Amino acid sequence: MSTGELVDLAQQLRVDSVRAAAAAGSGHPTSSMSAADLTAVLFARHFRYDFDRPDHPANDRFVLSKGHASPLMYATYKAAGAIDDEELLTFREKGSRLEGHPTPRQLPWVETATGSLGQGLPVGVGIALAGKRLDHADYRVWVLCGDSELAEGSVWEAAEHASYENLDNLTVVVDVNRLGQRGATRHGHDLDAYARRFQAFGWHTVEVDGHDVDAVDRAYGEALSTRGQPTAVIARTLKGKGVESVQDREGLHGKPLPEAEEAVAELGGPRDLRLRVGTPSPDGAGAPSARRRTGTPDLPRWDKGEEVATRNAFGEALAALGTARDDVVALDGEVGDSTRAEFFAKEHPERYIECYIAEQQMVAAAVGVAARGWTPYASTFAAFLTRAHDFIRMASVSGSGICLVGSHAGVAIGQDGPSQMGLEDLAMMRAVHGSTVLYPCDANQTAHLVAAMADLDGIRYLRTSRGESAVVYGPDEEFPVGGSKVLRSSGEDRLTLVAAGVTVPEALAAAEALEGEGIAVRVIDLYSVKPADRETLRTAAEETGCLMTVEDHHPEGGLGDAVAEAFGDGRPVPRLVRLAVRNMPGSASPQEQLNAAGIDAESIAAACRLLVGEAVVS
Amino acid sequence: MSTGELVDLAQQLRVDSVRAAAAAGSGHPTSSMSAADLTAVLFARHFRYDFDRPDHPANDRFVLSKGHASPLMYATYKAAGAIDDEELLTFREKGSRLEGHPTPRQLPWVETATGSLGQGLPVGVGIALAGKRLDHADYRVWVLCGDSELAEGSVWEAAEHASYENLDNLTVVVDVNRLGQRGATRHGHDLDAYARRFQAFGWHTVEVDGHDVDAVDRAYGEALSTRGQPTAVIARTLKGKGVESVQDREGLHGKPLPEAEEAVAELGGPRDLRLRVGTPSPDGAGAPSARRRTGTPDLPRWDKGEEVATRNAFGEALAALGTARDDVVALDGEVGDSTRAEFFAKEHPERYIECYIAEQQMVAAAVGVAARGWTPYASTFAAFLTRAHDFIRMASVSGSGICLVGSHAGVAIGQDGPSQMGLEDLAMMRAVHGSTVLYPCDANQTAHLVAAMADLDGIRYLRTSRGESAVVYGPDEEFPVGGSKVLRSSGEDRLTLVAAGVTVPEALAAAEALEGEGIAVRVIDLYSVKPADRETLRTAAEETGCLMTVEDHHPEGGLGDAVAEAFGDGRPVPRLVRLAVRNMPGSASPQEQLNAAGIDAESIAAACRLLVGEAVVS
Repeated sequence: MSTGELVDLAQQLRVDSVRAAAAAGSGHPTSSMSAADLTAVLFARHFRYDFDRPDHPANDRFVLSKGHASPLMYATYKAAGAIDDEELLTFREKGSRLEGHPTPRQLPWVETATGSLGQGLPVGVGIALAGKRLDHADYRVWVLCGDSELAEGSVWEAAEHASYENLDNLTVVVDVNRLGQRGATRHGHDLDAYARRFQAFGWHTVEVDGHDVDAVDRAYGEALSTRGQPTAVIARTLKGKGVESVQDREGLHGKPLPEAEEAVAELGGPRDLRLRVGTPSPDGAGAPSARRRTGTPDLPRWDKGEEVATRNAFGEALAALGTARDDVVALDGEVGDSTRAEFFAKEHPERYIECYIAEQQMVAAAVGVAARGWTPYASTFAAFLTRAHDFIRMASVSGSGICLVGSHAGVAIGQDGPSQMGLEDLAMMRAVHGSTVLYPCDANQTAHLVAAMADLDGIRYLRTSRGESAVVYGPDEEFPVGGSKVLRSSGEDRLTLVAAGVTVPEALAAAEALEGEGIAVRVIDLYSVKPADRETLRTAAEETGCLMTVEDHHPEGGLGDAVAEAFGDGRPVPRLVRLAVRNMPGSASPQEQLNAAGIDAESIAAACRLLVGEAVVS
Repeated sequence: MSTGELVDLAQQLRVDSVRAAAAAGSGHPTSSMSAADLTAVLFARHFRYDFDRPDHPANDRFVLSKGHASPLMYATYKAAGAIDDEELLTFREKGSRLEGHPTPRQLPWVETATGSLGQGLPVGVGIALAGKRLDHADYRVWVLCGDSELAEGSVWEAAEHASYENLDNLTVVVDVNRLGQRGATRHGHDLDAYARRFQAFGWHTVEVDGHDVDAVDRAYGEALSTRGQPTAVIARTLKGKGVESVQDREGLHGKPLPEAEEAVAELGGPRDLRLRVGTPSPDGAGAPSARRRTGTPDLPRWDKGEEVATRNAFGEALAALGTARDDVVALDGEVGDSTRAEFFAKEHPERYIECYIAEQQMVAAAVGVAARGWTPYASTFAAFLTRAHDFIRMASVSGSGICLVGSHAGVAIGQDGPSQMGLEDLAMMRAVHGSTVLYPCDANQTAHLVAAMADLDGIRYLRTSRGESAVVYGPDEEFPVGGSKVLRSSGEDRLTLVAAGVTVPEALAAAEALEGEGIAVRVIDLYSVKPADRETLRTAAEETGCLMTVEDHHPEGGLGDAVAEAFGDGRPVPRLVRLAVRNMPGSASPQEQLNAAGIDAESIAAACRLLVGEAVVS
């Protein structure tokens, strides 16, 4: 395309952005208009992508970090012939693929869902890491960011990660249109302010007039020829560019243009230029090689009664899984010696990504490598996964398939105190749409669940424990996701204890003590917290009349709620009691902590005695 | 103190760090030893603090961001005479105030709980903001950070906020000891790498040998004399400094020294130097003036039937509260025009803190100003509060009193799609220890709850809605926290609908439709989700036999779980059914969204019909 055609194409993208938002009655046309030239030049001159084959392994990848500029994205798809004008005008309608913010669940050309700002670059870093370190392919990753979102710390976690890994296959284009939602940004049009920050983090930077298509073209060329470091193209633009009544004005964020028809006329009227995007080499040069995605791992085995921490079992099982399958990747937040992800790192260093203490970036990198077909396991302390909650939520919106592993769960960690204790993680992970939540109590169970996670859909979470515990199950036992294990049962059971993880041995010990007193108690190991085994719980309810959940987690959102939810089908509900961590712990030994929280064997037995004596526990 | 005495004091801090960790059998002595000189010089020469009056308003404030170096902190308290040697050696014992990571719940000299890295500087920025913008006092804030934690994006959100607000009353001291938990950091001893980053974010920087007490003293002096910008003192140190066998070695993070007695000897043996910390001026010069903390706000009033969005009611009520009380501060994440925090900003600009798109920093700043006695309300979209989950969790560990407000909750926002919908926020907030969770359905209720929040303890959360809804209650109705409202009730009720927020009008409409069919249904507005009104729920259960919860939230962790939890006392449980958002929404109108999720009046009525027909809903 000539310079004149590029200018024309950019105007077409503006026109279609204005039209789409006008048809919807909502959306962000002004945020689209600022970046129209940047996008036109990129797609017409530099981006290599086969719209008919979005899964082509050699395709470049584009991430619209400023997801609210979706009209621009959809206008680009239309120009490229991927969607037609009729579909463009379904923007934001019920059932339309063209959502307010783009997601890959609906559109094959979208790499990751955006709309929560500051996430596109972190995920883009993950895709670029996949290209450079895992696929060894020469696809490039382009990320279009807004200027407002550079206030998010996650952007700087990503900047740090990208330069440390020398990701010269990554370019971020910053659309500095000066205006946020509510008003001006901190730095306005001070491009140097942004350039200084990226340079300090080790990036090459180019400052450019974002409405000068030739200058933008040269800037992208400079990015392509830069070796050894990522490039930030920092572009001065005007929000609402091209329509005098809205251009560079406050108070017009996220609103259709007041006079859409006049605006379209001012932009030169509708056009129907066809954008021909360069395709990657058809012979697959530069594409990654195929990977083994299946394979039966030679899982570690432990004998009943051995004392093993489930975190250790996770590490060993993951290393074994990585040997059986080429697609497994591990990421960790600089605590691999604690989570035991280091066991994998030692055996498969080429598929281990050290994310240092940056949990948002760790989860984003997992989403990025998953987008390229890898199966990531990202681990840190369960408590610190809360740092990445918004990224986990957005991963679910993407339909991303990632495995998360949180170690050091609960008060059972002991002396380190509450800052290190995951006591909210089950609540967080259960509430994620389509998630799976697993909480094993012994080493063999952990190993099987680690392997099973690889083939599930959506967000999968495994909760591991710091301390050693006795192996309860034989190495050949099976643990279907959605299942449970009835560990003690008799026809005389007067109530059922439902436990998971560290509370399983406590529940078993309590049941044993009670048996000596003539009180029979059933014990269920609900290792699959979500989905929960409704049938077994229902049977236990009918046969024993009362379920008592015991969990090393706050009372809200965890095992207790999961069991209650299992009875949310309108049928009769058993009596329900929950033991959980209701205090704010301090420092103490693991056993003292369990006791203080009232979830150790002694406390459980005491609660059972009260309950079967028909006293009310409150 | 002379140079020689400072060196001696630093050795004493090392010795006591080693002794405390040895007594506990765990802890982080090597991380303490690297920062001993930095701490000795600070407390002996520059820090102004009255240990007998930790609430002295003119005290300087110190934040140990690398909270795992708690032995160093406690050794300093001992040197200052605040604790004795006997207490020092209770480190990490059950019941001891000296937890693994320091918290203000236990110790009056601690400003904020740390232990999740990258949070100390953000909270320190909040305290410094309080000093400069709210208290107009001349106390200074000193934050001691590790080098590893600079990988957290939250540190750069804080750096950006601090320089933008010209916080020259803030100094961060970075203990660059080169080693993280698992191994070397990304930048090792490259002090310039850190200095470049802080400079790019607008800070003054000083690089220094962190074991040269005179040089450190000069660096602090330079920080004190720097005007208009915060200062970062970047110090080269050695982890485990002073004990040859551990100094600058990997694999020794978070472990007591292998040979503690020999180490103490190598450090010159125990000492008992008394550290005299300078006190702030006794006449209160430089101290903030007193504030009105009580006062009856002239709350906005609406007539029944008016159409008002609860987010608007929040904004108006907060502005009124700010007029009645001097202690109320508002913070927002650059969406004040959406959350309506801008109503407060217009009336009380001097108490409004714009945090731009940096939700972690926003919550941290709220914790910081709360630490100085202010009552903060921090608002953004409910979905984006997930970004700050770890900060909210740690605020609860601190025992901090902050109000959080999440707008644009649920699918009811309509076209913007799932990235903008808070569908996990109730789960997140309920699981926070000691939290209060409020979800009003109309404007008058919102206004009363906004006012009530100010005087509660702990983390308080208010969920608001984007769209307008009819005013249900009169302006003089009262809404106690922990209460509920029975909106429809009769002796013939065959089931009870429990709703909150946007589902209240839907439940009322369903009940009305069902009444026309001869099916009487009770409706409870459970505006106080936590604590929930167990008594009213129990009565409804006994009288109607079945409760159906209806919520604009994922099925896990929200209203359904809250109601189930209310029956967790071992007494008989009614039949429970939950309607919630089980789909992944796309774009659609608010009413289409409610319908697609099955939580609109029509869906509720259909579910009720099934249920009273004794069909099983699954």
